[in-house]
Amino acid sequence: MKRRWVYFLSDNLNIKNRDRLKEILGGKGAGLYLLSQMGLPVPPAFIIATSACRYYLKNRKFPKGLWEEVYLGIKYLEKKTKKRFGNKNNPLLISVRSGAKFSMPGMMDTILNLGINDEVVKGIIERTNNPDFAYDIYKRFIEIFSDVIFGIKREEFSKISGNREKIIEKYKELFYERTKRDFPQDPYECLKMAIEGVFNSWNNPRAKEYRKIYQIPEDLGTAVNIQTMVFGNWNEKSGTGVLFTRNVKNGENNIYGEFLFQAQGEDLVAGHVTPLPLEVLKEKLPQVYIKLEKYVKKLEKKLKDVQDVEFTIEDGKLYFLQTRAAKRTPLAGVKIACEMVKEKLITKEEAIMRISGEDIDYFLHPTFDPNYPLEIIAKGKPASPGCAVGEIVLTAEKAIERANENRKVILVRDFTKADDVAGMARAEGFVTTTGGETSHAAVVARGMGKPCIVGCSDINIDMEKKILKIKDIILKEGDKISINGTTGEIIKGEVPLIKSEFPEELKLLLSWAEKIAKMKVRANADTPIDAENARKMGAKGIGLARTEHMFFAPERIKYVQLMILAKEKEERKEILSKLLPFQKEDFKELFRVMNGLPVTIRTLDPPLHEFLPPKEKIEAIKELAKELNVNEETLIRKIEELAEHNPMMGLRGCRLGIIYPEITEMQIRAILEAACEVKKEGIEVDLEIMIPLVSVLEEFLSQKEIIEKVSKEVFEKRGLKLNYKIGTMMETPRACLIAQELAKYVDFFSYGTNDLTQFVFGFSRDDSAKFLISYEQKKIIDFEPFKTIDEKGVGSLIANSVKSARRVKRNIKIGICGEHGGDEKSILFARKLGMDYVSCSPYRVPKAILASAQAEIILRKKKFNQITTK
Amino acid sequence: MKRRWVYFLSDNLNIKNRDRLKEILGGKGAGLYLLSQMGLPVPPAFIIATSACRYYLKNRKFPKGLWEEVYLGIKYLEKKTKKRFGNKNNPLLISVRSGAKFSMPGMMDTILNLGINDEVVKGIIERTNNPDFAYDIYKRFIEIFSDVIFGIKREEFSKISGNREKIIEKYKELFYERTKRDFPQDPYECLKMAIEGVFNSWNNPRAKEYRKIYQIPEDLGTAVNIQTMVFGNWNEKSGTGVLFTRNVKNGENNIYGEFLFQAQGEDLVAGHVTPLPLEVLKEKLPQVYIKLEKYVKKLEKKLKDVQDVEFTIEDGKLYFLQTRAAKRTPLAGVKIACEMVKEKLITKEEAIMRISGEDIDYFLHPTFDPNYPLEIIAKGKPASPGCAVGEIVLTAEKAIERANENRKVILVRDFTKADDVAGMARAEGFVTTTGGETSHAAVVARGMGKPCIVGCSDINIDMEKKILKIKDIILKEGDKISINGTTGEIIKGEVPLIKSEFPEELKLLLSWAEKIAKMKVRANADTPIDAENARKMGAKGIGLARTEHMFFAPERIKYVQLMILAKEKEERKEILSKLLPFQKEDFKELFRVMNGLPVTIRTLDPPLHEFLPPKEKIEAIKELAKELNVNEETLIRKIEELAEHNPMMGLRGCRLGIIYPEITEMQIRAILEAACEVKKEGIEVDLEIMIPLVSVLEEFLSQKEIIEKVSKEVFEKRGLKLNYKIGTMMETPRACLIAQELAKYVDFFSYGTNDLTQFVFGFSRDDSAKFLISYEQKKIIDFEPFKTIDEKGVGSLIANSVKSARRVKRNIKIGICGEHGGDEKSILFARKLGMDYVSCSPYRVPKAILASAQAEIILRKKKFNQITTK
Repeated sequence: MKRRWVYFLSDNLNIKNRDRLKEILGGKGAGLYLLSQMGLPVPPAFIIATSACRYYLKNRKFPKGLWEEVYLGIKYLEKKTKKRFGNKNNPLLISVRSGAKFSMPGMMDTILNLGINDEVVKGIIERTNNPDFAYDIYKRFIEIFSDVIFGIKREEFSKISGNREKIIEKYKELFYERTKRDFPQDPYECLKMAIEGVFNSWNNPRAKEYRKIYQIPEDLGTAVNIQTMVFGNWNEKSGTGVLFTRNVKNGENNIYGEFLFQAQGEDLVAGHVTPLPLEVLKEKLPQVYIKLEKYVKKLEKKLKDVQDVEFTIEDGKLYFLQTRAAKRTPLAGVKIACEMVKEKLITKEEAIMRISGEDIDYFLHPTFDPNYPLEIIAKGKPASPGCAVGEIVLTAEKAIERANENRKVILVRDFTKADDVAGMARAEGFVTTTGGETSHAAVVARGMGKPCIVGCSDINIDMEKKILKIKDIILKEGDKISINGTTGEIIKGEVPLIKSEFPEELKLLLSWAEKIAKMKVRANADTPIDAENARKMGAKGIGLARTEHMFFAPERIKYVQLMILAKEKEERKEILSKLLPFQKEDFKELFRVMNGLPVTIRTLDPPLHEFLPPKEKIEAIKELAKELNVNEETLIRKIEELAEHNPMMGLRGCRLGIIYPEITEMQIRAILEAACEVKKEGIEVDLEIMIPLVSVLEEFLSQKEIIEKVSKEVFEKRGLKLNYKIGTMMETPRACLIAQELAKYVDFFSYGTNDLTQFVFGFSRDDSAKFLISYEQKKIIDFEPFKTIDEKGVGSLIANSVKSARRVKRNIKIGICGEHGGDEKSILFARKLGMDYVSCSPYRVPKAILASAQAEIILRKKKFNQITTK
Repeated sequence: MKRRWVYFLSDNLNIKNRDRLKEILGGKGAGLYLLSQMGLPVPPAFIIATSACRYYLKNRKFPKGLWEEVYLGIKYLEKKTKKRFGNKNNPLLISVRSGAKFSMPGMMDTILNLGINDEVVKGIIERTNNPDFAYDIYKRFIEIFSDVIFGIKREEFSKISGNREKIIEKYKELFYERTKRDFPQDPYECLKMAIEGVFNSWNNPRAKEYRKIYQIPEDLGTAVNIQTMVFGNWNEKSGTGVLFTRNVKNGENNIYGEFLFQAQGEDLVAGHVTPLPLEVLKEKLPQVYIKLEKYVKKLEKKLKDVQDVEFTIEDGKLYFLQTRAAKRTPLAGVKIACEMVKEKLITKEEAIMRISGEDIDYFLHPTFDPNYPLEIIAKGKPASPGCAVGEIVLTAEKAIERANENRKVILVRDFTKADDVAGMARAEGFVTTTGGETSHAAVVARGMGKPCIVGCSDINIDMEKKILKIKDIILKEGDKISINGTTGEIIKGEVPLIKSEFPEELKLLLSWAEKIAKMKVRANADTPIDAENARKMGAKGIGLARTEHMFFAPERIKYVQLMILAKEKEERKEILSKLLPFQKEDFKELFRVMNGLPVTIRTLDPPLHEFLPPKEKIEAIKELAKELNVNEETLIRKIEELAEHNPMMGLRGCRLGIIYPEITEMQIRAILEAACEVKKEGIEVDLEIMIPLVSVLEEFLSQKEIIEKVSKEVFEKRGLKLNYKIGTMMETPRACLIAQELAKYVDFFSYGTNDLTQFVFGFSRDDSAKFLISYEQKKIIDFEPFKTIDEKGVGSLIANSVKSARRVKRNIKIGICGEHGGDEKSILFARKLGMDYVSCSPYRVPKAILASAQAEIILRKKKFNQITTK
């Protein structure tokens, strides 16, 4: 079959997979196609596939056959509309719109009213008898075409004034002055330039920035939608509107939208003008409203998701211009997903796939302390819920600058535009003085899950003086404000924030997720408080309890320090025996909180010098010597003795327990005595003891020997016996390389992906920070290795070791307890390897549960696809 | 077939492989068997196989059937000798000797004269009419049996005096006192205990120590040789001797030996008595001497190696008691191997397999500066050649203590024994006041390749005062002496040492090795001087030239420091351009020296802070600031900025060249300009540019891009073109994991096994030194990972990466340039993987050439074995 570049709305594409459809036609094109296929009124259109854009960007020319197909497309539009392209008497005007697979609102270019020229404008005036309308269209076309294709900013045109014919003249003069050519009059020439302009806009800086923020692949390209113009600015029975099939702020099941009479779509989206609520249509054009309502409900049912619909009314006739899954607040997202399950529109699995980890993050975000008196200085429209506190900044650049200094900022502007996105990504929240809930600022805020207030007309921004005037209050850039995107309130000063609660719907969703997820989620928790928090967050155990964190309390660290200074084993044992009761109490409390859930306790890990002041802190050393009642010289000598060139690669982990077996002994005794004691209280203990930093089998065996010796002693003395597991932390490359050997002797592996990543790359997290930034800029590396598992390197090492371990011990328990345990992509990776659990910090547990369920669903689907395609 | 524990000398074992024979019968047993099979006179004997010992040590009891077979063995001896075990009138006396696969002289136990008791001694007196002889035998038996089986030291017996009958009484009393039992009279009971005693002696501490030093496996076990006694102490026509079929000091082809009349073998070996030269036999027992000479020549021809033969003459009749390959000095080893090739006794390959890396080390050892006047204070017998200088130590313990403080020591003792071996291993050389060239000290010294002087009776050791008296000279422990094991001279004070030359035979052997070795040997060399030395040593190229080493010369480091302090790129470039001429000159000289041999140049590797003084050296910083004419504050700030937590895992390697591409640019320009310029001189350049510390493909590609850009510029400007290769140093685990990807773009891999080992284990060489000692003691690790490649961990990573690389690029050049490139085992490993070359420090090159040839021979043999066993 011949390769095809152009698709018509009337084509029967026979593509069930909506994702695939978007890949070919872009999101907007796919929406138009679906609208049309469902029989909704859509202005005739055809679509240039994304593949043409990819070809163009690679080869800097149209692919063979494209222009011929476009020409046939125009013929098709002419036939459908009974108009003629470039014909004065009955002209076909078209829009040329970008539209990528993933929505990038306002980031790429769109050209409206193409087909108009000096002749055609005259014809329109003749036909409509409305010169204002006709010249408005021509004027808009010159502005937008000059901007997109020739880079002449619209602001330059907006300075031009005069009567309507004069303006067109002056516009064309400006165009000539800047380009040394006449404004093009051939509509086909314009069309070709417009298509190239849209293609090229895929690579404009703001689009690139947007893709980076939203992690959209760079190589998709955009489709081009070529559609017959309909005119919301035709007459008083015309207008343009945007609606959501449900409320995208709070998730309520009501149509919600905004409308402008006698306007084109861009007027609404740009946010310069404050629109009317959709309800005005009910009054003014009730027939149209009823039709609209009926159509969009049908649309939602068919597409099974809340739709963000653009429509235009031309002389009382309704046209749909776009439909897409609506961006929504996390709150609305969660509620809508749950309700659609109740309505049997979607399955629980589908609901789970619609929620993201960022949505959950949002609910972990704080709200204002309700007991704090609020000095409300202004109120706008609540456009994206949540609370935020920060310094006022008036430009996106300033937002970035301040955020780089680790300061929290609130961006306040008259309206935002695509160029501001990078700055918005760094701000805590946004306020605009104009625009509605479908304005750029509102859409971006909801997408980012950040609080936003729009149309706050009380605020006057003085960009010269860099101040805000709110009635008689004056705030400077840098002053602190607090904003509540749920209520629209702006408060002077810094309001204390408190943690927010999960909505019931999220709890329900997470309970579904828990049932679906095969891979369990545990938490890294060192203290009983951490553990309680972890349970509250839904953790099904502790995957990493770092015993050394228990050492830092003031009444304990003294003993740790004395232990380090001990001259010989007996003295060290003596001091360790004083630490034992502290450790035991901690463990008992930990076991009580976890009450039968698995608890993985790691023996001492950090290098001992971490418990002493650094060499250069002479005052601290003096003080400590006095406090411990030891010779200052002795202390200094010890500190020097413990100094290491590369502490990460020094005496730490199980190496400590091998050089000082008495430390391991004390810790194991404390753990097992604690377990015995709480068992007598009737509390179950599912204990896993973990040996860190193993790279040689005998290291593990030597520690196992101590554990077994001590356990025999403790159990005999206490007259009871407990089952427990002994495992290794897999955090050196060598441990992975000898996994098969280790697996024979260990009960479980827990991959410590932080250290493993450091050793595999040969760079430490601390020291690499400074060059990894450059690496990112220079595109040496395109992911954050300390956030997401490096599948190619670290991941392949893990994958091979899991395989070899399972070869000798099929049921060996395997998990991840590094930073990556809370990362979505890494969780999917872990699930693919068939791991039993991941462990992450308590606050990341709900996200991890969701990701674990999603991983399950993704893999099931893949399996299903594999089966059905066989 | 029934499992068999006992073998007789008359058995036809049909085992061609002499190694296999030794495995079963032990070295001594195999020797006896071969002697007997060749028809040489051997006292009747049978041998308990090593398998019985292994069983016994594991199960603490004799295997089923062993004792019955031993009983039959005794019956066999009785039949052969027509004597009866335990019979008073015609008693069979036997020796029960240890003998493992690998010779461990004096380390395990031996019991002589077993079969004697109160009754038998009387019978011997009656038959021989020689009560001195009979009691001497009994006395010796009680001493040795009590020592070996009951741990009563022979020294305790030696305090007992009196007439011969009285002595036996007192001996038995002492025995009773210590054991609360009578001295056993049943010879079968004694035999059983003796066998157990020999089995157990496999695990005595000195045997373990010896095995550790000589890397003999722990699980071999010893055979037990049960042999009819013959008596060198029978009468004046009796005696015992040791001989070598060639001179084991200088390799001359003359029989060489020592003899004692009226003595048993142990008297000779112990070294208490100074023996006579073998030539005395010619005079006193000429018939025996002729026979002896004939037999041993036959023996050498049959066994194809110099033999170390023990024999005894009983009443004028010659018996052979042992034969084994003789330990020899490196000089003798090399000469004998060459000569045997000339005599067509062995092949060149066999000759190569007989030489070890340590032998070559020996020739790299220094000799005395011939221009230095020597104050010779004593002279002994030269027992092992070579020169050494060090402090006098009088005990093995002291030798270890001082050596641990990195001090060089010479061990001076009356005689050495097995317990001293650990201390001897740490000394530079040994002097004994008694003993001959077959004494313990002499044998061990030759084995270790250390200088040794024996029988130096001028020296009087006062162990109480810890001094040596040599006539009127008094030397204290700790005083320095120099010894020449080639001449036997002992010199006061420290004589300057100079490098020695390779003997012609070694050069010949190495030339054979070079022809056989497929894997080439290069050198790590940074300067023209290094390179010249490398060529002299036989290197076939430079495998690693570290460019940074060229930076440290005083006139250059200033620029490096200014470059580091440069505030921006242009300034840095400016300063770099001043460094360029220096680097270029170095490279030109390097290319001239290597004249067409491959030269691998690595771009800058170390972290920049290594070029500045450390933070705490305030004086040095002040001085440097003045010197560089920069602000002190600025310098300090830079030093702080460059400080890293773990410099090993920080900004170094190719990361530098990515952050500062101008550094790579300058280096590449210097390299390529140098190459162009020497090419015009008519010198060939085989250039390989190596990028260090790659872990991400794009790191390599970014550096490759610079190289290609600069090369284009240089070649265009110079109007010529050179071929060169670009490769990576494989030193992070990730580089190995992405080898397949890297292989597509690189011309060669060079494994930097030092860093790779560090990252794989997660411990740095510096910081791990302190705990690796403990690890060795606690048997956590049984090899030195920074010396020999860790095949299980690091090795498996390398092996997999080599395989995947070759999958995409069959002919990719692969080598090792880490410390391991000069290590014998690691070279064998590299050859197994099919690497193209290894690179090591210049002085290790000859060893590496030998090892490479040996690897070839070993693999060929394996292949041959595989083919023939199919």
